[in-house]
Amino acid sequence: MIKVDRAIIDKTKKLEDASVEAIEKGLEAGHIAIPQNIKRDIDRPCAIGRGLATKINANIGLSLEASSIDLELKKMDVAIAAGADTIMDLSTGPLHEKMRKRIISDCAVPLGTVPVYELACDGKNKFASLKEDDFVDVLQKQAEEGVDFFTIHSGITLEAVRLVEKNPRIMNIVSRGGAFLASWMMINGKENPFYSRFDEILDIAKKYNIVLSLGDSLRPGAIADATDELQLQELVVLGSLQQRAFDKGVQIIIEGPGHVPMDQIESNVRLQKTICHGAPFYVLGPLVTDAAPGYDHIVGAIGGAIAAWHGADFLCYVTPAEHLRLPDIEDVRQGVMASKIAAHAADIVKGIPSALQRDINISKARAKRDWEKQFQFSLDKELPKRVREGSPSRETDVCTMCSEYCSIKILEENLEKRKKEKSS
Amino acid sequence: MIKVDRAIIDKTKKLEDASVEAIEKGLEAGHIAIPQNIKRDIDRPCAIGRGLATKINANIGLSLEASSIDLELKKMDVAIAAGADTIMDLSTGPLHEKMRKRIISDCAVPLGTVPVYELACDGKNKFASLKEDDFVDVLQKQAEEGVDFFTIHSGITLEAVRLVEKNPRIMNIVSRGGAFLASWMMINGKENPFYSRFDEILDIAKKYNIVLSLGDSLRPGAIADATDELQLQELVVLGSLQQRAFDKGVQIIIEGPGHVPMDQIESNVRLQKTICHGAPFYVLGPLVTDAAPGYDHIVGAIGGAIAAWHGADFLCYVTPAEHLRLPDIEDVRQGVMASKIAAHAADIVKGIPSALQRDINISKARAKRDWEKQFQFSLDKELPKRVREGSPSRETDVCTMCSEYCSIKILEENLEKRKKEKSS
Repeated sequence: MIKVDRAIIDKTKKLEDASVEAIEKGLEAGHIAIPQNIKRDIDRPCAIGRGLATKINANIGLSLEASSIDLELKKMDVAIAAGADTIMDLSTGPLHEKMRKRIISDCAVPLGTVPVYELACDGKNKFASLKEDDFVDVLQKQAEEGVDFFTIHSGITLEAVRLVEKNPRIMNIVSRGGAFLASWMMINGKENPFYSRFDEILDIAKKYNIVLSLGDSLRPGAIADATDELQLQELVVLGSLQQRAFDKGVQIIIEGPGHVPMDQIESNVRLQKTICHGAPFYVLGPLVTDAAPGYDHIVGAIGGAIAAWHGADFLCYVTPAEHLRLPDIEDVRQGVMASKIAAHAADIVKGIPSALQRDINISKARAKRDWEKQFQFSLDKELPKRVREGSPSRETDVCTMCSEYCSIKILEENLEKRKKEKSS
Repeated sequence: MIKVDRAIIDKTKKLEDASVEAIEKGLEAGHIAIPQNIKRDIDRPCAIGRGLATKINANIGLSLEASSIDLELKKMDVAIAAGADTIMDLSTGPLHEKMRKRIISDCAVPLGTVPVYELACDGKNKFASLKEDDFVDVLQKQAEEGVDFFTIHSGITLEAVRLVEKNPRIMNIVSRGGAFLASWMMINGKENPFYSRFDEILDIAKKYNIVLSLGDSLRPGAIADATDELQLQELVVLGSLQQRAFDKGVQIIIEGPGHVPMDQIESNVRLQKTICHGAPFYVLGPLVTDAAPGYDHIVGAIGGAIAAWHGADFLCYVTPAEHLRLPDIEDVRQGVMASKIAAHAADIVKGIPSALQRDINISKARAKRDWEKQFQFSLDKELPKRVREGSPSRETDVCTMCSEYCSIKILEENLEKRKKEKSS
């Protein structure tokens, strides 16, 4: 039975239309997760899962070639200000521990990591010689530091690695953690420690109330690879692990594809929900084409909106820098906004009452040409104001697209005239 | 029976996987349209409709508060370079005739207009006193000038105006042409001349081989207004007009919504295809939320991708300036790219062979870390190159996101090692 402190649920409730009772029931059933390490106090915790508004995550972090902690924390601030519900620190490189310490202290929302990255920070050769214990120890270490959720690549097994070696794909493994683990397994001829030692991992997660986000090492990295044997074999493993976690009272999220053509997204969501017993689904995109580098935030917004509409609960943002470079601050902002739009469009059709209400409010303001109110109900309250102010119209109530030929205004004038005629 | 010169079909064929015979059959059935005025020679004509790659249109044009013809022609160039298949000149203001002359001479792709805007250029009061003949005459004039397709708001009738007066909507009429016509009808108490004189309009279109794009004056302008009585009443009228046009051998396209929540898009497309006898469907977005001004190109990409997947043939771009101001050059580029992504993602699932092949090609290049080939197969060949060059990696074959921890490279190295071990 999964239980989370009532005080934390109350805090998440601010974001939701759902009742505390509905959230508690969702937690108990394993359909909702609330990541919050017992060591951390989070200003803005959030609940993720069935019946709730779709949440979005922004990844930041140092890389081997970018080592300004301040810059990454600035990206965190920008992401949260733009609406990110959670942050993941994907840092690699020599300063990753210092970075994690800073972000655990500063981050106002739930913080996730991919602990295998810490193990990889000493280089590929050292990674190959790691012992199984090392994989468990790093989780214990980061749990004690206060991380709220871990991506753990428990689903890739020796059996899957044998399938990968047959290499039937265009892009074999595009998950960084997955590639590290597959390599370790190939070199050492041993089972994935995140799979073989899963019970110990559950004990750590249980102790610290850490949500385990089970990573999809074998997600498709190309449209032509989507929904293939490798992906589904891993999903089945993840479903059995979810059940084991649930039985131990550990909160689970399942990660999902990846590159998926539009017409396979709904079935991907339904499969995940069935195989993983209704656990929250955290999708990476999905990207509906491989061919738009520089615009992958838009590609991910298309896929994310469709996925969330059909039941995905948590969208990992994709920035315009995806496939090209580490994102900069503007990329982060654009990525969060695109995901926010996808989540909101989905929430309207998921039946989240406040989502449709926002659209009704902004449209009523638009009908009245009340610009301040329009900005107030916009997903981004600042940008539309700047855009409009950059092109002022002679008539203050309309915009420079139509000016005095504003359809709304023309009709309004005539309707009012008609009303007067009729009443006189 | 609709027939188009074989030479023109051959020219459009360059864009298509479909055979000339399939295009001819589609034309005959009214399921495909090829806009090209007999007075014009078009460098890059295109065919729009069933079985073909999804096409996209970019709107440009002077407004009452923007009167640089050169700037608008620059927007046209940017739009076509980014991949617009057609251009619409929506100019209003005193220079509209000069503008149209220039664009008819310069535009390398099919050119559309909304002729009622010309009638509106002399102001609202003068518009109210127009005679029915004026509405037909302006079509004759622009036909003779060489315009390839007209948006004609024939579907809004006196009956609809009576429904509008009951005003059950948040946003009553958001079509500029529709608002002008509704006002004219209210003031004059007469039927819409584009409806009452439809036979004469067909004669003009037939003579010049102009495609009539039947406008949807009553498209929803707010999510809460979608798929309502007004919209469907007009669609039924459009279906009957399409039949009359088809019987006279005139090519027709039907325009569609508008602001539509995601879960109503498929049914909107299916309704249009049924009611309008398979005529090409030209969607304006659709926008899946009202609440993201400043990002409506992304909102439109989500809706456009879903619409095209389910059979919409032609996407009108939406720029980031929508609802805020007249778009600038960068807005135009962003709008075309977002529509291009939506169209391409849809073409993959529509089964257009070259669409999926592009994704396979870029992903194969990505697997090999062949950057030049990746750029070559990208929908935007320039931007990704600039983005990558702005963040050079120490190792030339990877990117700064993962650097030497590139999953593809790690796995490739290990798979090669395994292969060698096995063969030795």
